[in-house]
Amino acid sequence: MLDIFKQVPLYRYLMYCQETEMPRRILDCGAGGDMPPLSLFEAYGYATYGIEFDPAQCEIANAYGRAKGQDLNIRQGDMRRLDFPDQSMGFVYSYNSIFHMRKAEVKQSLQEMDRVLMPGGLMFVNFLTTNDFRCGQGPDVGNHEHEQFDDDVPVIHSYYEPGEPDELFRNMEILYKEDRVLERIYEGERIRQGFVDYIVKKKAIS
Amino acid sequence: MLDIFKQVPLYRYLMYCQETEMPRRILDCGAGGDMPPLSLFEAYGYATYGIEFDPAQCEIANAYGRAKGQDLNIRQGDMRRLDFPDQSMGFVYSYNSIFHMRKAEVKQSLQEMDRVLMPGGLMFVNFLTTNDFRCGQGPDVGNHEHEQFDDDVPVIHSYYEPGEPDELFRNMEILYKEDRVLERIYEGERIRQGFVDYIVKKKAIS
Repeated sequence: MLDIFKQVPLYRYLMYCQETEMPRRILDCGAGGDMPPLSLFEAYGYATYGIEFDPAQCEIANAYGRAKGQDLNIRQGDMRRLDFPDQSMGFVYSYNSIFHMRKAEVKQSLQEMDRVLMPGGLMFVNFLTTNDFRCGQGPDVGNHEHEQFDDDVPVIHSYYEPGEPDELFRNMEILYKEDRVLERIYEGERIRQGFVDYIVKKKAIS
Repeated sequence: MLDIFKQVPLYRYLMYCQETEMPRRILDCGAGGDMPPLSLFEAYGYATYGIEFDPAQCEIANAYGRAKGQDLNIRQGDMRRLDFPDQSMGFVYSYNSIFHMRKAEVKQSLQEMDRVLMPGGLMFVNFLTTNDFRCGQGPDVGNHEHEQFDDDVPVIHSYYEPGEPDELFRNMEILYKEDRVLERIYEGERIRQGFVDYIVKKKAIS
């Protein structure tokens, strides 16, 4: 039986993907980690492609695929400069990943994701929101773009007002948008996280 | 391959269930409809039980199960008076269902769900919130308890402030809570819905 993937909003995205007639070719931007959701899409018959900035996380994700008898096809890459042709993918997504950059770079990455997506194809992207408990921590180098640390490694986290990313998709159709504030227990502490998720469609004539 | 279930938050609940050692016996309160999520739990090895107020919806759900070779074991029942012994279930949930009653009846139903749940077992329940686009429509017969119509049938919808249900779980441990405001296209119209989802644990010593 398939693992249950912790990236729960991607089940909804898969449901939306399944309802289209687009070619089953999907790209994950930020595809690394110990439970790569591309494995879910591969199980449903998608040809998978993934890029990931950290080579170690690439290998962890590909090892997960190999253990399942899947070639997930994840390699080192940078979503600001995608090494894929224009309109080559039916689907492209980035889950819990794109906000680890400055907002100008997020915008650039979304333009790249749009570029490789076929007209009529679907994109999933989620963003951290200003409702997150870490928003405000660390120096703000821009507009809620905070210098923070994950496991002692310095990283940028960009936080958005829940409606703020709308304008990034003004050439696309927003099919689904969900503003979520969640509370859970993480390493013994109750934490509050804020995300806004988008499922958008690239217009057939652009 | 399994269908992707539109009741997406239940994937997270299943993930939490899988991480426990509780007996794999699960009850769905409001189990009817054309895509019964008990089918997902059955596929992962759970003994399933469901109750549903509307006999026609029972039959639709059981027919789905039969088509998949599953006996989902859904029958007519009333969650305000559950016909199951005390502490007989490892898991009990109610998805998009419990808020079709007055708030006093919701409370009564939750007490029944708590009664049939084993100590250490997990419950999932979600509520409509006052962020929903329909909150305020129709006569308010209580505290955001609105008389409305679904498909020309009169129904009550009870709407909660996002933190309001907390006190219903004061004898339980809240493991996960998610306040969600979503926008989607429904029958050609863009609608805004509000939900708050809870995953709670019955304390081992009560």
